[in-house]
Amino acid sequence: MDRYLLISADGHAGPPAELYRNYLDPGYHQRFDEHQAEQLAMRQSAGYGAEAFKKEWEAETGDGGLTGAFDSDVRSEMLDREGVVAEVLFPDADVMGTGRLASSPFGSGLASSGDSDPELVLAGAKAHNRWLADFVAKQPDRRVGVAVVPIIHDIDAAVAEIVAIKELGLGGVMMPTRWMSEPAYHDPRYEPVWSTIEELGLVLHTHSGSGPADYEPGPGYMAIYATEAWWWAARPLWVLLWSGVFERHPNLRYVIAENGAWWLPDLVTKMDEKYLGGHNTKKLGNAFTENLSMKPSEYIDRNCFLAASTPGVEDIDRMYQVGVGNMMWGSDFPHPEGTFPHTREMVRRRFKDVPEVDARRVLGLNAAELYGLDVDALAPLVERIGPRLSEVHAL
Amino acid sequence: MDRYLLISADGHAGPPAELYRNYLDPGYHQRFDEHQAEQLAMRQSAGYGAEAFKKEWEAETGDGGLTGAFDSDVRSEMLDREGVVAEVLFPDADVMGTGRLASSPFGSGLASSGDSDPELVLAGAKAHNRWLADFVAKQPDRRVGVAVVPIIHDIDAAVAEIVAIKELGLGGVMMPTRWMSEPAYHDPRYEPVWSTIEELGLVLHTHSGSGPADYEPGPGYMAIYATEAWWWAARPLWVLLWSGVFERHPNLRYVIAENGAWWLPDLVTKMDEKYLGGHNTKKLGNAFTENLSMKPSEYIDRNCFLAASTPGVEDIDRMYQVGVGNMMWGSDFPHPEGTFPHTREMVRRRFKDVPEVDARRVLGLNAAELYGLDVDALAPLVERIGPRLSEVHAL
Repeated sequence: MDRYLLISADGHAGPPAELYRNYLDPGYHQRFDEHQAEQLAMRQSAGYGAEAFKKEWEAETGDGGLTGAFDSDVRSEMLDREGVVAEVLFPDADVMGTGRLASSPFGSGLASSGDSDPELVLAGAKAHNRWLADFVAKQPDRRVGVAVVPIIHDIDAAVAEIVAIKELGLGGVMMPTRWMSEPAYHDPRYEPVWSTIEELGLVLHTHSGSGPADYEPGPGYMAIYATEAWWWAARPLWVLLWSGVFERHPNLRYVIAENGAWWLPDLVTKMDEKYLGGHNTKKLGNAFTENLSMKPSEYIDRNCFLAASTPGVEDIDRMYQVGVGNMMWGSDFPHPEGTFPHTREMVRRRFKDVPEVDARRVLGLNAAELYGLDVDALAPLVERIGPRLSEVHAL
Repeated sequence: MDRYLLISADGHAGPPAELYRNYLDPGYHQRFDEHQAEQLAMRQSAGYGAEAFKKEWEAETGDGGLTGAFDSDVRSEMLDREGVVAEVLFPDADVMGTGRLASSPFGSGLASSGDSDPELVLAGAKAHNRWLADFVAKQPDRRVGVAVVPIIHDIDAAVAEIVAIKELGLGGVMMPTRWMSEPAYHDPRYEPVWSTIEELGLVLHTHSGSGPADYEPGPGYMAIYATEAWWWAARPLWVLLWSGVFERHPNLRYVIAENGAWWLPDLVTKMDEKYLGGHNTKKLGNAFTENLSMKPSEYIDRNCFLAASTPGVEDIDRMYQVGVGNMMWGSDFPHPEGTFPHTREMVRRRFKDVPEVDARRVLGLNAAELYGLDVDALAPLVERIGPRLSEVHAL
């Protein structure tokens, strides 16, 4: 085939508040309306001088892709134009704070953390997951839904929700990036969560977006946040790894989404060095081997994947150090930091010098295998919309 | 000169408890004794399987260099053997938990944080600083003392202590790495601290060693800590930078000690990209430019230095990306993860292929300039003990 199977391992979807509302248990309607009003007020007061960008963005894209965030036909048409045959779907499509779409109810999306209200965040997650399952069901070949599951507060409830979202046809679980003042992910209390995800063949995720809560707005606040956001999203990797989660759950697959890939090789070097008894940490005895039977790099190769949305030159540059089988392209549609509406051109820019066999893996085959997408079923669509090799590798 | 001026930008010094006690205001003696007893008990219960390493270490070094941590003549003899003419001195020499030396009183050393008891940590810091001033005064050409100053709790008291340690002849200030639940270092409340350090020509430091407090002991605890410790020590860099501290204080010099250098180039790339309006963060408007008049890399070049103790191959490999003028070698004496008692051999291994002009900077000249050491006064000592070029560059 002279076209690439292009799968975005990072897309965002979610409806306006009035639609989400219908998916909430009725007992939460009033609190949802109140929470929405608070969110809107906060967004309106938050501005950080990005108005000029917002205007540019809307001039370029019209609705900023937001209709495609919840309208199945519109999304499919938009993806056709972009050359994307399938997508992995996360919540919180409207990051520009336009208020046209709601976030996953009660902060159950990217902002979910150990500090969330346990009852509300679970109710909100269930609503999002139900909505997402309906959205996925409209184009099941093209969509993998990642459920939001607040795994921190009530383990039994989390396990029950994981079982439920599998039955709803969703393919993955996104856990909160930050445990905050609750037990970190090395704690044995989370074992039933890892086991359930592993046994059901789901994929575990963290997704970048939430930052630390240990400093207040003040000079440089947003820049500080943006500089360290990658680290907070990556952090569960070494917490899970060193505590032996991948040792005990060899079939658990963990994806870090929208977080680049450039940072992985150094991390792996440092971790392997420690495991192998590097000079600097020798004094810590068996701290690096007690829960592992292989080098950290071997677990990462087997269990971990990076959805490197809108990869930069530095991500592509380190693709072979990251592992061609462990890196997945993503468009981040419809976020303005994503490749939309220039996906074909962005794919060309980043992959023009990447050998075809490796580009095929990163652009689509890895995601297809990981999430069990039916490549044969997608083939006619690839034939119609996939970026041509001649186009991607044009000079 | 056919020898290298070898200056360690990272050494540790501190006395046994009975000596520290004399430097504390008498009102704190009883609480110091209690705190020491608690510390000892904690150390004895802490073991993580490193007993075998401890035995090896003592078999190799005898006292592990700990007598040199507080005995001026012994230290100088040891450094002579190692080829080190001068040192920058931080607290907490006894990291193996032997109990032979005390930590900087009341956790005022590497463990100092926003969670420290404000009164006790200041009293402890004053005691350490007085002891350190006496220790430096015994060999002022060879020693730069870095005072410990808990800048977080009481700004006026911190400023007063900074003025006091300048008068005591110390050359730098180490601030706590972690602000914990107190205001982060972007907060304008710290302005008097930065101004005072800048005006007095002192050097500001963070030093690796303290990790996060957001997870409890459990599987993989020490490995998780060791994997992320570098990040916590580096973090103040981007907090200070984005909040405009280096813009407002062009002469403020900031050193990150015992934290490698390998991580800096990627950080700089990412920060510059954001400042210059990179695609991924364009939506944040002026968040990256509001406090700066230059690119982040330019502030780092001017204001920031890395004391890359016991550099690894990955630190040397990126020396030219870090900046040959911004990187300093360190021995970390007498810590077992340092180069002692094999400093000459470790210098040879890492610097044998580094051009002489650059090795001279990283091994000593940068530190001499930064801390105002008298290179002419040290010349005879270099003639006597400095590693020979023929030795360092031997194949």
